Amino acid sequence: MSGPSTIPFRAAVLSVGSELLLGDLTDTNATWLSRRLTEHGVEVVHHLAVGDDVDRLVRSVRWLAAEVELLIVGGGLGPTSDDRTREALAAAAGRDLVHHPELEEDLVARFAAMGRRMAPQNVRQTFLPEGAHPIPAVGTAPGFRLELGEGRGTQVVAMPGVPWELHAQFEDAVVPLLAELTGGGVTITRVLHVAGRGESDVAEVVEPLLDQEEGTVLSFLARSSEIQLRLTVGAPDRETALARSEPIVERLTSALGGAVVGVDDDDLETVVLRLLRARGRTLATAESATAGDIAARLARVPGASDALVGGVVVYTAGAKQDVLGLPASLLEAEGTVSEATTRALAAAAQQRFHSDHALAVTGVAGPTGVEGLAVGTAYWALAHPDGEVEVHGRRIPGDRQQVIARLGSAALDLLRLRLTDA
Amino acid sequence: MSGPSTIPFRAAVLSVGSELLLGDLTDTNATWLSRRLTEHGVEVVHHLAVGDDVDRLVRSVRWLAAEVELLIVGGGLGPTSDDRTREALAAAAGRDLVHHPELEEDLVARFAAMGRRMAPQNVRQTFLPEGAHPIPAVGTAPGFRLELGEGRGTQVVAMPGVPWELHAQFEDAVVPLLAELTGGGVTITRVLHVAGRGESDVAEVVEPLLDQEEGTVLSFLARSSEIQLRLTVGAPDRETALARSEPIVERLTSALGGAVVGVDDDDLETVVLRLLRARGRTLATAESATAGDIAARLARVPGASDALVGGVVVYTAGAKQDVLGLPASLLEAEGTVSEATTRALAAAAQQRFHSDHALAVTGVAGPTGVEGLAVGTAYWALAHPDGEVEVHGRRIPGDRQQVIARLGSAALDLLRLRLTDA
Repeated sequence: MSGPSTIPFRAAVLSVGSELLLGDLTDTNATWLSRRLTEHGVEVVHHLAVGDDVDRLVRSVRWLAAEVELLIVGGGLGPTSDDRTREALAAAAGRDLVHHPELEEDLVARFAAMGRRMAPQNVRQTFLPEGAHPIPAVGTAPGFRLELGEGRGTQVVAMPGVPWELHAQFEDAVVPLLAELTGGGVTITRVLHVAGRGESDVAEVVEPLLDQEEGTVLSFLARSSEIQLRLTVGAPDRETALARSEPIVERLTSALGGAVVGVDDDDLETVVLRLLRARGRTLATAESATAGDIAARLARVPGASDALVGGVVVYTAGAKQDVLGLPASLLEAEGTVSEATTRALAAAAQQRFHSDHALAVTGVAGPTGVEGLAVGTAYWALAHPDGEVEVHGRRIPGDRQQVIARLGSAALDLLRLRLTDA
Repeated sequence: MSGPSTIPFRAAVLSVGSELLLGDLTDTNATWLSRRLTEHGVEVVHHLAVGDDVDRLVRSVRWLAAEVELLIVGGGLGPTSDDRTREALAAAAGRDLVHHPELEEDLVARFAAMGRRMAPQNVRQTFLPEGAHPIPAVGTAPGFRLELGEGRGTQVVAMPGVPWELHAQFEDAVVPLLAELTGGGVTITRVLHVAGRGESDVAEVVEPLLDQEEGTVLSFLARSSEIQLRLTVGAPDRETALARSEPIVERLTSALGGAVVGVDDDDLETVVLRLLRARGRTLATAESATAGDIAARLARVPGASDALVGGVVVYTAGAKQDVLGLPASLLEAEGTVSEATTRALAAAAQQRFHSDHALAVTGVAGPTGVEGLAVGTAYWALAHPDGEVEVHGRRIPGDRQQVIARLGSAALDLLRLRLTDA
């Protein structure tokens, strides 16, 4: 009666580390793993976080193994004595730890490539529970895969807790395993990146449009720099899921008008760089309040140097004069945070870098006001190829980090809109 | 023999909500609750997240009740049919749900105060497990307290998952309970920020020194930009905890030599800015691979403009010539990522910004090599007030974001060390 995709297949994420339980670190690994597992059609039913206590770890592993078919363990694979995941999984499986000389060789070589000597403690990382299949290190911690229990037992995958190592090992070693274990069936998530509108504003537009279609879930994620609309769609295969999602994505995009920056990997920075490249235009920045954050955000996108020429951080009045040649009289008359100063910064950056466009921002990031201006007072300006400069300003809510992130997004979004119009 | 503070008293946080398990929301309630509970001397040993399935919720509550003396449940107390926490806790306790007319009156009045009529669904929120003590709503969801099991059983507190409601009910209803349950006692965490050494290297130095002192826990946290050593110390009160931690912090700091940047809030950026300020020195930056990230990291610290004058992002060869006046012949002969170019950038930034110091970085952030150089090849230079420039270089491991973060930390740490020597 039932194909392989109807076998219930559930997963749990076990995060190991005392810093989670002290409230010093938030478990973003569980979020990331849940999203990726869901996208592959796996139902995640538990997240559990535990400290470095072996007995408690063993009890946790055993309890979760009775609840799920796949257990992803993140953390506790480092070289120190409080890294107890290897020991706990061996105990939960009733097995010994076995040395893997090939992993030790690999680690020694990895350290040598960085010009460093491997410390004796790192040898701990090359002892895995008997019967475990090693997952090669991408940083310095090998992971492994292990089966717990008899018959259709629980597949356990242990990976380091460092996010980039966990992500890389997941893609390399877990994704291929998932197809095998689930017999297909996928859930995809489409992400709409929204700029320039508030969360309740977006909700008001979007909610009446979505008559809860079977197998689809829509959620909101508000960040400092953007709002994300996340649409999850299930289907037997990826093509069908994509085809089902497409009309919904189109309906949302058209309802939100120009506020949808892009879909999936097309976030604000990526879209701005692509638009610049498509029009053969270059960009320079002149940043006061954001102090380099706009340039750094763009530079996180590989290949940014095609369009981003450079920028200046003019954090003090002196720097605005010395490096961009703004007259002291302008700064005195108008103030360092003002429409006129921001306009002059954009024009000067454009000239100095010989770029087609320039973005400039000034603002009061806080925590205290400056020159009698309230925290959040902010201006952003865009210089066009014909030398015209447009300036916008408003009061941006939030703390220092939020003002910096939102001011940068306002400037980048202005450039996006003008490049889209063009 | 033992005072009340030595009775083992452990807590778990149970977060209820499908959006956590889909990866659409990160469990920041668990982080917040853990920090507050730790501050009140309670050891948090588990975070567990579960969806809206009653059977799974009941099994989770029973398992956690066997592990801890205090269980804080967040979420699943809303008015909709997928809010199952009341039902699940009643089932776990083997009790019925009982109507609380006084809660219903209170809810009706709360809606009226907002000019709204209470929907019939909200009556669900006024049915609590038999024997539960209600915690008045601060938004629209009442919470409650319940004892599970015989004798010294497990105290269960259920609160809404909306962060501000959870925070308010915690302060009102849980904090007074904690003093009663724990008999006082606090736990503090001291954070040592470490730069310039690898995790295993730090472990090798630190481990032999720490003969696991009673009531102290040491953990490692490796981030791209730094390593943190986190020391947790319990004591009857904050002053005693601080006094107990101090000799351990000193021992760790002296064993790690100059690698300890600072303690608690003194991270690399804060310490660099403080050292500059103390010596009355200013700083400018010239960033290629990091593209403004170094300046932006410093600017996240309030008051950074005291010492940070500004910087340039010279992302292309053209920008290096146009804005900092580097000769094309130098860039051609030595390459844009090289010791000589990095040296010239630092000297030029120092001159252009009239600053006492300048930091410059060049590197190959990836994902692909540049000018025949491997990903991770990186140089950082520091210009001193006397005009001398020192340059360092090595191959930095990691992906694009990691290389950017680590290269920035290497440059900032060089400045820190030289300002400390001075």
